Amino acid sequence: MIYELYYWPGIQGRGEFIRLGLEEAGADYVDFALKPEEEGGGVSALDRFLDGRDVARPPFAPPFLKAGRQVIGQTANILLFLGERLHLAPRDSAGRLWTHQLQLTISDFIVEIHDTHHPIAGGLYYAQQKREAKRRSKDFLADRLPKFLGYFERVLQRNPRGPGMVGARISYADLSMAQVVAGLRYAFPIATRKALRARPRLRALHDEVFARPRIRRYVESDRRLAFNNDDIFRHYPELDG
Amino acid sequence: MIYELYYWPGIQGRGEFIRLGLEEAGADYVDFALKPEEEGGGVSALDRFLDGRDVARPPFAPPFLKAGRQVIGQTANILLFLGERLHLAPRDSAGRLWTHQLQLTISDFIVEIHDTHHPIAGGLYYAQQKREAKRRSKDFLADRLPKFLGYFERVLQRNPRGPGMVGARISYADLSMAQVVAGLRYAFPIATRKALRARPRLRALHDEVFARPRIRRYVESDRRLAFNNDDIFRHYPELDG
Repeated sequence: MIYELYYWPGIQGRGEFIRLGLEEAGADYVDFALKPEEEGGGVSALDRFLDGRDVARPPFAPPFLKAGRQVIGQTANILLFLGERLHLAPRDSAGRLWTHQLQLTISDFIVEIHDTHHPIAGGLYYAQQKREAKRRSKDFLADRLPKFLGYFERVLQRNPRGPGMVGARISYADLSMAQVVAGLRYAFPIATRKALRARPRLRALHDEVFARPRIRRYVESDRRLAFNNDDIFRHYPELDG
Repeated sequence: MIYELYYWPGIQGRGEFIRLGLEEAGADYVDFALKPEEEGGGVSALDRFLDGRDVARPPFAPPFLKAGRQVIGQTANILLFLGERLHLAPRDSAGRLWTHQLQLTISDFIVEIHDTHHPIAGGLYYAQQKREAKRRSKDFLADRLPKFLGYFERVLQRNPRGPGMVGARISYADLSMAQVVAGLRYAFPIATRKALRARPRLRALHDEVFARPRIRRYVESDRRLAFNNDDIFRHYPELDG
């Protein structure tokens, strides 16, 4: 099976959580964001599904994955689907549900990270909501960042079979968590260093994931886009600290 | 099996999406938010799971559901679990995934609805972020509300077996969607009336769900709390219009 991944070109975004899963599993996939428009890639490829009148089960937004005839949307939902097929989640139903629960908590975390620079509207520029972004970021760094990181550190601590959060093997939720740590270090280098000081298990999980041979090969390839300020994780020094 | 539901007392909140599923299915459950503290209910019941050192797989936040020994967190994840057991989702895996995808899109919608009155921080009062709330609500009503409602109307339209969004039977995502319509009517009566004018299928889905015998009995019972301004859906007239 060759999977087809559809996501916005030019950013890692939510598509990256899917890419990390596909790469770790060594799955065959086509990333339409990386194909030129002339070859059927880019934004036009997305629009066919988002606006097409013949799509019976249309996704609300990218990323979405085409697997045979099935079109699957919502990042966590795609990972739920792939987790089972690519062995990135436990086989037992309780373990599968727990992995998904962690992924959904990561999704909540990502929304709050995004909204630090866009607290008023995703459709407005950062410059149009900079004052509000400062207020929201201040609260985020003081209250929400430690709450989320503290939670995931606790989850790691309670899984004696670690280094991941679920059982003995690395799961898709671990891949996503490592990506969040990397993104936070890009966006809020000062605050993140401070927040991770007392969270050795999260630091170790990040290192474990990015040292895995397939993930390392992917990160070193030209398929991995760099973090940048059109993305979820943005580095505005005035919001950090 | 007697399910145990844990959620904050005094509000419908995210717990309500679970309650509607349990009620529609006629499931046996104990709602700990409604039990007095002296009888092991209320906030203390929640804290045992959120802060307890012996919980192997702790939830990040309420609601969570105890089913036998399993503790399941995240609203959409709980519904994924219950959907299968209580026949509130299709049996085939593609249909189950599609129902869950809709639920996750509803979850995204709910976050944006909540953040209209709390764009800066959930830990601050509305009065402390009223100016920002006005800006965010204006954008929400102009851009996001029509985008989400337009999407769900389209989903209903593409399911010829309706009245729900998935196949011929009412799913947990339909129950949640009807609850969102009810909440929006409470929070933004003027804007919602306008937005629903051209969306007859969403209005019909709301009516269909709340006319179902078990849901009607539940809504008329004292178990159903009223919408109120400590909740996700809040009515501040200055944000509507």
